[in-house]
Amino acid sequence: MQKHISSAAIMAMEKQERVHFINSLGGFKSVALVGTVDNEGKTNLAVFSSLIHIGANPPLMALIFRPSPPERNTLNNLLETGFYTLNHINETIYQQAHQTSARYEKGVSEFDETGLTPEYKNNFKVPFVKESLVQIGMAFREKIDITVNNTIMIIGEIVQVYFPENCLGNDGFIDLEKADTITCSGLDSYHTTKRLDRLSYAKPDKALTSIL
Amino acid sequence: MQKHISSAAIMAMEKQERVHFINSLGGFKSVALVGTVDNEGKTNLAVFSSLIHIGANPPLMALIFRPSPPERNTLNNLLETGFYTLNHINETIYQQAHQTSARYEKGVSEFDETGLTPEYKNNFKVPFVKESLVQIGMAFREKIDITVNNTIMIIGEIVQVYFPENCLGNDGFIDLEKADTITCSGLDSYHTTKRLDRLSYAKPDKALTSIL
Repeated sequence: MQKHISSAAIMAMEKQERVHFINSLGGFKSVALVGTVDNEGKTNLAVFSSLIHIGANPPLMALIFRPSPPERNTLNNLLETGFYTLNHINETIYQQAHQTSARYEKGVSEFDETGLTPEYKNNFKVPFVKESLVQIGMAFREKIDITVNNTIMIIGEIVQVYFPENCLGNDGFIDLEKADTITCSGLDSYHTTKRLDRLSYAKPDKALTSIL
Repeated sequence: MQKHISSAAIMAMEKQERVHFINSLGGFKSVALVGTVDNEGKTNLAVFSSLIHIGANPPLMALIFRPSPPERNTLNNLLETGFYTLNHINETIYQQAHQTSARYEKGVSEFDETGLTPEYKNNFKVPFVKESLVQIGMAFREKIDITVNNTIMIIGEIVQVYFPENCLGNDGFIDLEKADTITCSGLDSYHTTKRLDRLSYAKPDKALTSIL
């Protein structure tokens, strides 16, 4: 049975119910741990489900920041140093990843609290998450204020990438299932995936083929 | 074996290889069909993997538009009428959804070319995709130019939602697996999901529990 809900009914929902409902409607999302450090060396780690591809040349990705405190620590740190890391989440660490969303006090590192391991390498000043199989070093590029609801979009450029060598295909595609990357939905639901297909580049009047 | 790639190596990649590589790094993505119509009633349907949650109050979602022609038709239409639809993709229609990314000429409707069915209802002026189980009617709210790479972010407000009644939980969460919604990675890879867990709201010094 199909259910129909319109604006008025959405706005009449109790706050947490609306948050769950609207977050679910966005579909399955990219979920990653964002690592930062301040100029005194204090680390921070926070889970984000708002990672989005912006472009490949230059290689850019964006994150959305809400005005709430845990996200503000990440934002302040990355603006202070100009760098941050994105770390894919796998089945082994999704509970620790979720725990980073707790509102720890400012001086407390989520690395310490969750047992995830900060990994410094290749002279990159911000720690990666050692337990992540896909690790991305980012340089801050642009801050955009989204005035309609007081959120902020941060665009960064990919400057370092670490990933399992056997996940890389001839055409540049990375097999994220081989890298154990998982996805999320809503605020708190975590999912593994199973590939249906890879499809050829679509052209008018040409049948698609599987490129598995 | 872990592989390391830095900026110079990314920029040295052949263009299509870089596009596949960078798109894969974003993780699993929300994928949806965006339905639009122009003021003459000509419909357009395009697959987007850049859908992102912006906020729940008001209920906002964003899409990223690249400068290429198929995305420009969608953009022009939604700016012309002020409305568009987002339609989740399921296993039955992912090939048709992918085919909408072909560069059809401007007068050609991807509904006609792919066999997906435009569904007009509840006086909403833009068609939904009948074959989609989760259908969202959107009102345009804000256009943001991303100058760093000449892309555009469109923010819209959710004004109509249709979904299978049995997918809705007591707390507002929608079970997207019950709704057959799938996810994608890279440019062309489609995946079903399997839930690992739903986790309780994280608090410092409190163990997470499963809320399945």
